[in-house]
Amino acid sequence: MTDPMSTPSLATDEDVATWFRAAVRAMQAYVPGEQPQHGKFLKLNTNENPYPPPPAVLQAISEAANGKLERYPDPLGTAFRIQAAAELGVDPDWILTGNGSDDILTIVTRGLVGENDRLRLPYPSYILYRTLAQLQGASCEEVHFRSDFSLDERFAVNDERLKLVFLPNPNSPSGTMIDPEKIAALADQLTCPLLIDEAYVDFASSNCIELVKQNPRVMVSRTLSKSYALAGLRFGFLVAQPAMIRMFRKVKDSYNCDALSLAAATAAIANTKWLSENRTKIIATRNWMTERLRSFGFTVTDSQANFVWCTSTQHSAQRLYEGLKAQKVLVRYMNYPGWGDGLRISVGTDDGARAALSILESLL
Amino acid sequence: MTDPMSTPSLATDEDVATWFRAAVRAMQAYVPGEQPQHGKFLKLNTNENPYPPPPAVLQAISEAANGKLERYPDPLGTAFRIQAAAELGVDPDWILTGNGSDDILTIVTRGLVGENDRLRLPYPSYILYRTLAQLQGASCEEVHFRSDFSLDERFAVNDERLKLVFLPNPNSPSGTMIDPEKIAALADQLTCPLLIDEAYVDFASSNCIELVKQNPRVMVSRTLSKSYALAGLRFGFLVAQPAMIRMFRKVKDSYNCDALSLAAATAAIANTKWLSENRTKIIATRNWMTERLRSFGFTVTDSQANFVWCTSTQHSAQRLYEGLKAQKVLVRYMNYPGWGDGLRISVGTDDGARAALSILESLL
Repeated sequence: MTDPMSTPSLATDEDVATWFRAAVRAMQAYVPGEQPQHGKFLKLNTNENPYPPPPAVLQAISEAANGKLERYPDPLGTAFRIQAAAELGVDPDWILTGNGSDDILTIVTRGLVGENDRLRLPYPSYILYRTLAQLQGASCEEVHFRSDFSLDERFAVNDERLKLVFLPNPNSPSGTMIDPEKIAALADQLTCPLLIDEAYVDFASSNCIELVKQNPRVMVSRTLSKSYALAGLRFGFLVAQPAMIRMFRKVKDSYNCDALSLAAATAAIANTKWLSENRTKIIATRNWMTERLRSFGFTVTDSQANFVWCTSTQHSAQRLYEGLKAQKVLVRYMNYPGWGDGLRISVGTDDGARAALSILESLL
Repeated sequence: MTDPMSTPSLATDEDVATWFRAAVRAMQAYVPGEQPQHGKFLKLNTNENPYPPPPAVLQAISEAANGKLERYPDPLGTAFRIQAAAELGVDPDWILTGNGSDDILTIVTRGLVGENDRLRLPYPSYILYRTLAQLQGASCEEVHFRSDFSLDERFAVNDERLKLVFLPNPNSPSGTMIDPEKIAALADQLTCPLLIDEAYVDFASSNCIELVKQNPRVMVSRTLSKSYALAGLRFGFLVAQPAMIRMFRKVKDSYNCDALSLAAATAAIANTKWLSENRTKIIATRNWMTERLRSFGFTVTDSQANFVWCTSTQHSAQRLYEGLKAQKVLVRYMNYPGWGDGLRISVGTDDGARAALSILESLL
């Protein structure tokens, strides 16, 4: 037996590695965008909303906090599902609540993709998808977008090991969108489920909720982090047919959403007027940011999201990222091996965006 | 292509089952204790604290809600880890934050246990452990406690497929505890990691934090749901050696804890005076509840948790549960195949416990 008075017997990374699953040992950790906890940064790197959330949300949080925090929350988030269902035109049993849409993506992947299975995604897109496949011991098939960010026909090919396809729409980093009609055709061709990640869809001109009704393999994930200015709250949800939702309930943690985020999300999703006004502001800023960045000589895709994607053959994107950071402006430098690099700049307030773009101009 | 105007094409459970992993298809969903959202119940069924959380917690939530909810939270919960580390006598890098301790149990299981591996737990204990193994496609080895709730020697036997051992301490439903010295000896015998689930440990007379320093295979999980009266908040954490924590960070969702729960948990864990006073009240109520239930003829184990476990050869536990529920008192009826059944009654306020036990007495 060990001596209880001994100094800590510290294990090394090599010591502990043998106890972990091979898949976990082999993988790299997903690295989220920088979230500086100290220092004053103009933060345009993780597509947060530059405006505070609707005041009704703060009221709902205050009431829930003064309610019964000592009690477990409703495991199925019924009040939220009723409200969201009314907004989306589906029944409440078409909705699964999640601790952020990352939790939804985790639940869907754990439900459908096992060891040696395959998960497909477009490239470049959200890097987390790859991490989720790796965690399951599955392989990841990255199908390159065409140069105009349309989908290559290989994206619709079936194979026995393919168990799930992720399609972010609008996509990040490009901000581009695939037309819902094209996605309906893709879903009809695929024999496995297709998850359309609509994290940014409230800033776009269309969405795929109707496809869920037409094809049980289609699922849509949403988040309140971007368009409802609630990244700090962690709340997302899945829209899928009831038979799918019933299966995913087996996979999720019973109490994956807390009482405060459920109350806040219920208040937020009811606030369509706030959403519409916020969306209008973001889109107006996005449009002049796009024009101004083009006037600097950048190639900027037409964005349907709350960020813009800039590439340049003249300037080093990495150098510009570093120059901006030195002046307390954080943007996201993305480098996709086999594809290229660029800057993904979140849409800020008009003042914030003007300040950031002036500094960027000075670095050219 | 599907006709966008068609009525929903609804899939059945059988239709969708084929798209899911075999492990998920085969498993039953974990069923948490009843959480009635309507109607006035005296709720003594899910081991919630009967008292409201410390006032400092509400203050912290209010400040965080009025801060920057539009920003992502700190993915590593640094402020919480610094505070908790000071309370526990470890460094902050020995702590991993979780969305409830269920999230911690999920992260640990996903990190260590793969398909066809084996996970060991004592029986009867927390039913969720089995669900977590099933989700991984792993098998579950339930080693029966001896009749006095001590550990059978088979609990310490190694085998190649065994990748993780769960030991709730205090245990539920029994409320009993294994001595830390015995657990140290168990951990020394085992060649795989051992997770000691200390969800109820703040109501007990000892804990196993020191063992983590002595043996890198030992991990301790904690929750703020019970002793800090924050079940609605979803916050738990893992104490393990830094090399273990680094691996588990690869498995967790980046932003698994939200800004409100991080702020609340940081305030709660600093509030040792509140904890001590709450603990004293709960233990005093637990002690007279135990005596009174014994005077009714129940067999009641000596509990080190915030609930009591009552069995009877004279009375049907299920009938008593139903009789209590009909009078708006919820307790937990537990029936463990191959072991037996009983009532697990959470410690309430003195008034609540008196009311519940009077109704119970009237049913005998």
